[in-house]
Amino acid sequence: MQEIVIDAAKLHNFARSLCEKAGLPTEDAEQMAKLQVQTDLRGVHSHGTRALPGYLNLVLDGKLNPKPNLSIVSEGPSFAVIDGDNGMGHLASTLAMETAISKAKTTGIAAAGVHNAGHFGAAACYSIMATSDRMIGFSTTNTGNPSIVPPGGAEAVVANNAMSYALPTDERHPIVLDMACGVSSWGKIATLRMYDEPIPDGWLVDDKGQPSNNPNQGRLMAPAGGARGYGLALIMGILAGPLTGGMMACNKTITTSEHFFIAINIENFTDYDTYISDVKQGIHKIHSAKTAEGFSQVYLPGEIEWNNYDKWIENGIPIHTNHLQSLANVAEKLDINTFWE
Amino acid sequence: MQEIVIDAAKLHNFARSLCEKAGLPTEDAEQMAKLQVQTDLRGVHSHGTRALPGYLNLVLDGKLNPKPNLSIVSEGPSFAVIDGDNGMGHLASTLAMETAISKAKTTGIAAAGVHNAGHFGAAACYSIMATSDRMIGFSTTNTGNPSIVPPGGAEAVVANNAMSYALPTDERHPIVLDMACGVSSWGKIATLRMYDEPIPDGWLVDDKGQPSNNPNQGRLMAPAGGARGYGLALIMGILAGPLTGGMMACNKTITTSEHFFIAINIENFTDYDTYISDVKQGIHKIHSAKTAEGFSQVYLPGEIEWNNYDKWIENGIPIHTNHLQSLANVAEKLDINTFWE
Repeated sequence: MQEIVIDAAKLHNFARSLCEKAGLPTEDAEQMAKLQVQTDLRGVHSHGTRALPGYLNLVLDGKLNPKPNLSIVSEGPSFAVIDGDNGMGHLASTLAMETAISKAKTTGIAAAGVHNAGHFGAAACYSIMATSDRMIGFSTTNTGNPSIVPPGGAEAVVANNAMSYALPTDERHPIVLDMACGVSSWGKIATLRMYDEPIPDGWLVDDKGQPSNNPNQGRLMAPAGGARGYGLALIMGILAGPLTGGMMACNKTITTSEHFFIAINIENFTDYDTYISDVKQGIHKIHSAKTAEGFSQVYLPGEIEWNNYDKWIENGIPIHTNHLQSLANVAEKLDINTFWE
Repeated sequence: MQEIVIDAAKLHNFARSLCEKAGLPTEDAEQMAKLQVQTDLRGVHSHGTRALPGYLNLVLDGKLNPKPNLSIVSEGPSFAVIDGDNGMGHLASTLAMETAISKAKTTGIAAAGVHNAGHFGAAACYSIMATSDRMIGFSTTNTGNPSIVPPGGAEAVVANNAMSYALPTDERHPIVLDMACGVSSWGKIATLRMYDEPIPDGWLVDDKGQPSNNPNQGRLMAPAGGARGYGLALIMGILAGPLTGGMMACNKTITTSEHFFIAINIENFTDYDTYISDVKQGIHKIHSAKTAEGFSQVYLPGEIEWNNYDKWIENGIPIHTNHLQSLANVAEKLDINTFWE
C-alpha cells in the first residue's frame, strides 16, 4: 500500500503545528498550513505538504527566516514591491497579492512584486485569492537555477518558472490555470520518481540537447510547446526577477526567490454580472462539447484539481507513504507527534 | 520563382495608399501601413500585408468602418475600455496601448480593453510599443470562431488567440514573444498552403479528436503544449472577451473582435538601469549558451524575426507572388498602380 488517506483538517493542524514549532508566528503558521493543504486537496501533491519538510529544514538550518519582517519597499497607486526578509515565500506573496487586490479596487489593475523570499509553493494559491474579490488573478515566480534547455541549446538557460491565472466564475470554483513553462514541473518529476513511474518521452534533455528519459543526469528539461515555453519561462523570470529587484536565474548569485502578482478588477472594465453570465454560458458549452473516444468530458483548466478538492475535503486526501515519512522525519526533529498510523 | 524582393519603404507607401483610397483618414492609413509592413519585416508575413486585402475587402463590402469614431467608454486611474466603432482593430488597439502606457507612467501598471473592432494584425505590434517608453508590454486578442480542440475533445471550444509580451533591453531591439495558443497560427497554416508545404504532424485534429494533416476538413487545431495552450487560449479569450465587454468565442453572435493590453512601468518597480544591466547580462549568457548539434546559436524570443527586420529593411522583403497578386487584386479594385514588376 503506497498511499494512506489523510483527513484534511488533521493535516492542516499538523502542518500548522510544525510551522509554529519551527518558529513561525501563529498566524503565519496558519497561512502556511492553509496554502499547503489547499494544494494537496487540489491533487498537486508536488507543491503541497510534500514540500513542507524542505521549507522547514531550511528554517532549522538557519537558511530561511521564520519571523520575517515584511516591508513594502516602494509603492504607488497600482504597484508595490515587498521585501520578504528571507522568510517563507508564501507569507510575502500573500501580502503582495492582498496589496495588489486592495490597490486594484480603486485603480482597475495593480501589480506587486516580492524579492528576497523563499519558494512560494503553488502559483495558483495567489491567483485564486483575487477571485474571492471578483478579480482576475495572475501570479508567477522566479525560482531555482536554470533547468530549461531552449530550442537548439544543449544547456539550461532559464528556470522552470510557474505561471497561474485564476478567473471568477460564480460557480463553486474559479477557472485556474497553473502551469510550469517546462514540459513538467520538477516537483512532478520528483513525484513520479516517488511512485516509481517512468519519466515520459520528450520531458528531459541530455547535455548534448538530445531527448532523454534519465532523471539522474542533471536538471535539464524541454520547454512546453518548444519556443513558447522557453519564451514564457524567460519572460516570467524577468517579471518576477529584475522587475522586482531580483536577478534572472542565469545571473543569480543568491538562493532566494522572487515572485510577481497582478490583480484585475473586473467591474472597472465591464458589468460584473454580464461578465459572469457570458463565462457561465461558455462553461456550459465547454462541458457539453463532443469528446474523443475514451474521454467522458472536456474539463475547464483546473477543474480536475477542484474535483479532487471536493471529494477529498470530505473523504480525506490519499497521500504517499514516502511523503508522510518525510513529514514524520521533520516532525520528529520538532518533537511533534504524527496523527496517522 | 515564388518570391519577389520588395522594397519596404515602397511597400509602406503602397499600403498607405490602399488604405487611404479605401476611405481611411491619412494618419490612420499611415499607422496601418506602418504596423503591417513592420510585421512583414519581422518575417511574420501571415499577419503583415498578406492580411491587408482581407481587411480592405471588408471595408469595401461595408462590413468594416473606414472612419471609426474611437471612444473611451470607461476609464479610471489604471484602466480604460475603448469602443472601436467597428473600424480596423489596429487603430483602436494603438489608442488602447497608448492609453495604457500613459496611465502606467503615473500608476505603475495599466490595462486597456477594446471591443467592437476588427482583427488587430500581429499581437507584437502593441506589446512592442510599450518598450519605447521603457515599459513591459502585453497584448492579447479574442478573434475568430472556436478552432482549438481541448484535450479529450472532438470539437473546437476556444479560438486560437494570440498573446505577446515585449520587454525593453536597451539593445537594438526588445525581447518579443508573440505566440498563438494553438500549435500554429491559422495565418501560418495559410502561408504553408500558399508555399505548397505539408502541414506538420500534430498540428491539426479531425472531428473525432484524432491527429490529422488535412487542412481541408475544417478549422480544428491542437493546442500548444496540450492543456497549457488550451488553458491560455481560454483565458486570453476571457481577458480580451467578457472582460472588455465582449463575449467568449464559443458564445459569439457578432463578427467583431476584442483586444486587451497591459503596460508595466519598470522604473516604478525597480531602478531601470539595474533592470537593464541584469537583462543585458542574461542576454549575453543566452547568446553564449552551448548549442545542440546542427544549431549555431541560441536565440532570444523574437530575435530571429528582428534579424529578418535588420536585413530586409536594408535589402528588401522577399514576398510570395500569390501574396503580391492578392495585393494587386485589391489595388485594381481601388484603382491604385502596383510598383513591382
